[in-house]
Amino acid sequence: MTRVSRQASRLVADTPAIAEAHFRAEAYPYHPRLRRDGWLNLGTAENRLLADLHTGQRPPPLGEATTRYAPLYGTAELRERVAGHLGVDAEDLVVVAGATAALDVIASVLCDPGDGIVVPTPYYGAFDTDLAGRSGARLLPAPPDPADGYGLWPEGVRRVLAQARRAGTVVRAVALASPGNPTGSVHPAALLRELAAVAAEFGVDLIADEIYAGSVFEGDFTSLREIDGPRVHTVWGFAKDFGLSGLKAGVLHTPDPDVREAARALAYFAPLSTHTQAVLAELLAEPVRVTAFLAENRRRLGISYERAAGLLRAYGIPYAPARAGCSVWADLGAWLPPAGERALWRDILDGTRVSILPGEAFHAPRPGWFRVCHSLDAALVAEALTRLGRFLDGKGGPRGEGRQHTAGTAGSLV
Amino acid sequence: MTRVSRQASRLVADTPAIAEAHFRAEAYPYHPRLRRDGWLNLGTAENRLLADLHTGQRPPPLGEATTRYAPLYGTAELRERVAGHLGVDAEDLVVVAGATAALDVIASVLCDPGDGIVVPTPYYGAFDTDLAGRSGARLLPAPPDPADGYGLWPEGVRRVLAQARRAGTVVRAVALASPGNPTGSVHPAALLRELAAVAAEFGVDLIADEIYAGSVFEGDFTSLREIDGPRVHTVWGFAKDFGLSGLKAGVLHTPDPDVREAARALAYFAPLSTHTQAVLAELLAEPVRVTAFLAENRRRLGISYERAAGLLRAYGIPYAPARAGCSVWADLGAWLPPAGERALWRDILDGTRVSILPGEAFHAPRPGWFRVCHSLDAALVAEALTRLGRFLDGKGGPRGEGRQHTAGTAGSLV
Repeated sequence: MTRVSRQASRLVADTPAIAEAHFRAEAYPYHPRLRRDGWLNLGTAENRLLADLHTGQRPPPLGEATTRYAPLYGTAELRERVAGHLGVDAEDLVVVAGATAALDVIASVLCDPGDGIVVPTPYYGAFDTDLAGRSGARLLPAPPDPADGYGLWPEGVRRVLAQARRAGTVVRAVALASPGNPTGSVHPAALLRELAAVAAEFGVDLIADEIYAGSVFEGDFTSLREIDGPRVHTVWGFAKDFGLSGLKAGVLHTPDPDVREAARALAYFAPLSTHTQAVLAELLAEPVRVTAFLAENRRRLGISYERAAGLLRAYGIPYAPARAGCSVWADLGAWLPPAGERALWRDILDGTRVSILPGEAFHAPRPGWFRVCHSLDAALVAEALTRLGRFLDGKGGPRGEGRQHTAGTAGSLV
Repeated sequence: MTRVSRQASRLVADTPAIAEAHFRAEAYPYHPRLRRDGWLNLGTAENRLLADLHTGQRPPPLGEATTRYAPLYGTAELRERVAGHLGVDAEDLVVVAGATAALDVIASVLCDPGDGIVVPTPYYGAFDTDLAGRSGARLLPAPPDPADGYGLWPEGVRRVLAQARRAGTVVRAVALASPGNPTGSVHPAALLRELAAVAAEFGVDLIADEIYAGSVFEGDFTSLREIDGPRVHTVWGFAKDFGLSGLKAGVLHTPDPDVREAARALAYFAPLSTHTQAVLAELLAEPVRVTAFLAENRRRLGISYERAAGLLRAYGIPYAPARAGCSVWADLGAWLPPAGERALWRDILDGTRVSILPGEAFHAPRPGWFRVCHSLDAALVAEALTRLGRFLDGKGGPRGEGRQHTAGTAGSLV
């Protein structure tokens, strides 16, 4: 009998709930005519609003340049194009097979097994696997801003770092999604500066997953690498901003030469298809076209968010106001049964066939929060949120537009 | 100052010589008119004989099916096609970003850090990184057949397994390339059966890197999974048989349900672009076309090998007779200077600008062997081997066609 390694057993046991829920929901999708009893998948932050902008694009043909060995940390051509797009130096980029791989690479470069990475909550649930699954790092959750229950709170990060220091835990980095996921929030530059100061105080690096950098539909975005320099490692990709989740193209930017050399060595295990790199290089070939494409992405995401938020308001479901990304962070705390969040999640699945992910999957500091993704066909979102709203109505609980969010968010109607 | 993890430091220090030599040699390639002082790269086992068969092939367009999330261990469509091609069950396949990733996956599934994998020498040098770099396994080299100095020798494997058992080392697997690399040999089925018996005797799994399965130009090939069943894990890919090294498409076949589940979990870190999977599924769509393609591959490799072997014979350079793959294992032992193999390698690089890899990179049991790749433009191979032959002539040493191989190979003219 073959025995499976400890790491592999752990990975099997910890398979990200997000990935699992996605494929279950996608296996039998709702269709207004063909499968009215099908699933509505609002559980996956996949940007499906841009398909028509790509459809029919002919990829470059197969040939020497697109099928031969190329540097395993990215072709010079793609790195140059991405560098132009992000406004960085191509030498500082490492291209790998997806943002997950990029997160795994940077965590494995920074951490020995057992080392800590502090992560402000709520956080993208797959960080548990992406950052810790292969590196052996331990994620130390930091609390959100107590004022609203979900905002970035540098003081909370400082406290966890101080506590870890007292406990003798070696911490190598603070990691966060910026813009935020699941919240869709854009962390204010002042808070990012505070966070950088905290990291500097404790001598730890910063890892920013900026995969939604081009998906901010309200206000501006500042990359963490513009705020703090030498010890900031950022991750980006084509899944969200370009709606190309299946191409599995992840990019790591790091200004540190030692980290870069190590990241290149690790990229050897997860290279991106040379042909797909050629497809992406072509996509970025004309900056004017890219600018127009991203403007259209932001426009569509903004409309999609407003529609979803409107439906949540119509059913009296509070939520955290979002300015970016594919999801909204909704508070179903008022409908929480005594059996808890997981019971509510199952009730919703069974009662509506709508897949949304519970806050537990994002290390939410209290039960009742759910991530609701909206970046898909508007009719599907409307069907799903109507089902959800009616279902919650049937259970009793709050109702009525204009209800204030329980945790309160200064000035915003939630 | 950012400190790099122990694993990352080790990977930087151990960057496979093969990859490094490749990109150095490719940076300034020889051209008969434009760069007569350029490099001739016979160091990389890249199959460059098939480019014209792909050139102009239009890949499928970008669209929902080719750009959306798909199962991270391979789309159902590609796994079905590969299953048909290899004659296995699609459920037993895990598709990842390259054969390196597939080897990393299976080693990480089978081994805890410190566990051993026995590998008969000479072996594909990158195994050191592919099998051990991230899994933390230790490779235990086993000696080749003493009769010729390079053939598969199950008894040698048995001795290493017995020794490891006495030393208290936990060994999880025996790994080998089949067909062989660097030797290009096709291991006789009888020897593979003996090897399987040895593995069974010690209760260890078998890992067979069968990436050259469709590149056997003389005689038949038997997959190890046809010889032994439940504990054989095989790796295959599109780099050699289809000449598509840049697409980084690796396939792991495993019949064990626990291993498969664990391998799928690890595939999460190195998924293959959905679009590239669609390209490959299309390539395999018509079995008749695939059969013709592979026949042409074998024909071209056979011609290429015969040409290279003829040149080696013309300069009196002994070699192990090959029946598969992209390389020939040449014995320059007669020209070995007192300073050793590395000195000869440097002499050749400086004196000829021909890149071939020394046996040290393949854990050859004695110095003097070199792997000479021949699967590229015939004129380049001729130029390179002529330079090499003249260079060796200039150093003195043996000369003359028909010289017997020093180690002797029963019945074969080497």
